[in-house]
Amino acid sequence: MREGMCLPPGDPMDGLAFPAALAAAREIAEAQIMARLSPLPGTLAQAMAYACRGGKGLRGFLVLASARLHDVPSHQAAPAAGAIEALHAYSLIHDDLPCMDDDDLRRGQPTVHRKWDEATAVLAGDALQSLAFEMVLQTACPDGARVELALQLAAAAGLRGMVGGQMADIAAETAEVPLTLDQIIALQAGKTGALITWSTRAGAIIAGVDDTPLRRFGDCLGLAFQIWDDVLDVTGDAATTGKAVGKDAAAGKATFVSLLGLDAARARARDLVNEAESHLAAYGQKAQTLIDAARFVIARDT
Amino acid sequence: MREGMCLPPGDPMDGLAFPAALAAAREIAEAQIMARLSPLPGTLAQAMAYACRGGKGLRGFLVLASARLHDVPSHQAAPAAGAIEALHAYSLIHDDLPCMDDDDLRRGQPTVHRKWDEATAVLAGDALQSLAFEMVLQTACPDGARVELALQLAAAAGLRGMVGGQMADIAAETAEVPLTLDQIIALQAGKTGALITWSTRAGAIIAGVDDTPLRRFGDCLGLAFQIWDDVLDVTGDAATTGKAVGKDAAAGKATFVSLLGLDAARARARDLVNEAESHLAAYGQKAQTLIDAARFVIARDT
Repeated sequence: MREGMCLPPGDPMDGLAFPAALAAAREIAEAQIMARLSPLPGTLAQAMAYACRGGKGLRGFLVLASARLHDVPSHQAAPAAGAIEALHAYSLIHDDLPCMDDDDLRRGQPTVHRKWDEATAVLAGDALQSLAFEMVLQTACPDGARVELALQLAAAAGLRGMVGGQMADIAAETAEVPLTLDQIIALQAGKTGALITWSTRAGAIIAGVDDTPLRRFGDCLGLAFQIWDDVLDVTGDAATTGKAVGKDAAAGKATFVSLLGLDAARARARDLVNEAESHLAAYGQKAQTLIDAARFVIARDT
Repeated sequence: MREGMCLPPGDPMDGLAFPAALAAAREIAEAQIMARLSPLPGTLAQAMAYACRGGKGLRGFLVLASARLHDVPSHQAAPAAGAIEALHAYSLIHDDLPCMDDDDLRRGQPTVHRKWDEATAVLAGDALQSLAFEMVLQTACPDGARVELALQLAAAAGLRGMVGGQMADIAAETAEVPLTLDQIIALQAGKTGALITWSTRAGAIIAGVDDTPLRRFGDCLGLAFQIWDDVLDVTGDAATTGKAVGKDAAAGKATFVSLLGLDAARARARDLVNEAESHLAAYGQKAQTLIDAARFVIARDT
């Protein structure tokens, strides 16, 4: 697939160091979503678009960086980058609902059910999940790769992935015995890890090559990401993170920090990022943006 | 694709008159869903399976009947039949939530949020939507047809289809001016029609043939179906329909019955079924099961 393809001059992801590459990727993914929502009238389209704005765009970036690693042009992978950001936005809307985490604030703005109402929040999330599958199936690649991308996305999003992890997380809140470290690792592999690993694998799936190194990279990165989220829940402040903090400790919830302590949690995250990097060794210098992204994950304050 | 294929003897859908064919189809679709959920432990898988049991299975039947019309064996189309039933079940769980229709009863059983809780209901619906896309992508047909099936399903399920229709329905409840007939038709084409039309088209998409006649058949059938639902909301009782009745009238909501009157609404549904039949004329006797299904839609009391 790669050989005969003519790369358009100036792929927007090329030649950019990490923070700029992340910003460029966020713009690409957001443009994909807005192109599908902006022409549509009504509150639902508006609420869906609202929920997709203002995030870091890390998952969409991972898709595009994974694509560039395999010489897939950004414009080909762009619908897949938009898809994962739409799916992530849906999960945040539903996680914030009163019957779940009951959050008023997300990315520094009122959550969808606070700005509109609960019905709008449920439906905006539902429609964003449908949109995510529509978008991922519009990725410019052979039909077989599209089927694989969408199948893996469905598996990562559902019962054995993100939603299953969220359900386990809620169950843990009312459980009498706090979770063990292994249980938290398994829970987070679903809740946060599955979408991150899908994102890192996406470029290899589009290009039709073995995705094992990127899967391993994603698994380490996803876990490091979640450990760092737990660190930020203790050390961060709401103004910077754009969401409520200190909630886990207040709820007496077992987290990586409560189980390991702050310093050991940070060290564990660093070790995971080092391991993540090692899985991309065969890609050499070409993987630098992804490696910078992994380092960013454990340096961010938001 | 059709020529070289060896049909297994005794396709379970063949030679059955309508009510038996509907029952057989329901079993096939349910088996597809349960095969994916039963091996999994936990409340979430349990709630998902619970929500998929006990329906009429009309949409899954339409998929399998549409497949048989094009000589696609039922076992090939079965994952698509399971997918549409899973998607339908997700929509019912979310529609029943307190922030939406706030129903306690569905298919004669407690709704998911009554049997468990709201968080479980939101997540079971979310995971059933993911499962629906996973299943439809496992339909045994060429990759191009799988992509088309899933793309059309995403379009039918989302903002421009089912979820958009549900949002318009909720908005209508608080609107100062009741909807006009044209507005109700547009709303229902999304809320109920889109999934029904997807189901009638599915066999043609799997077989890779023109789906225009089945699309027209589905559009008429979907509208007739919704008109009959409005009729049942007035004439039915909760014990038979397995859900609350008389809610629309109590809410002062514009329906086909409130706008047309009971007799004219019934006549309109009959006309639509006649028109639906006419679109399948070219298929001759082979379309009899689908035609019987259309007649069933305006004869049912549940």
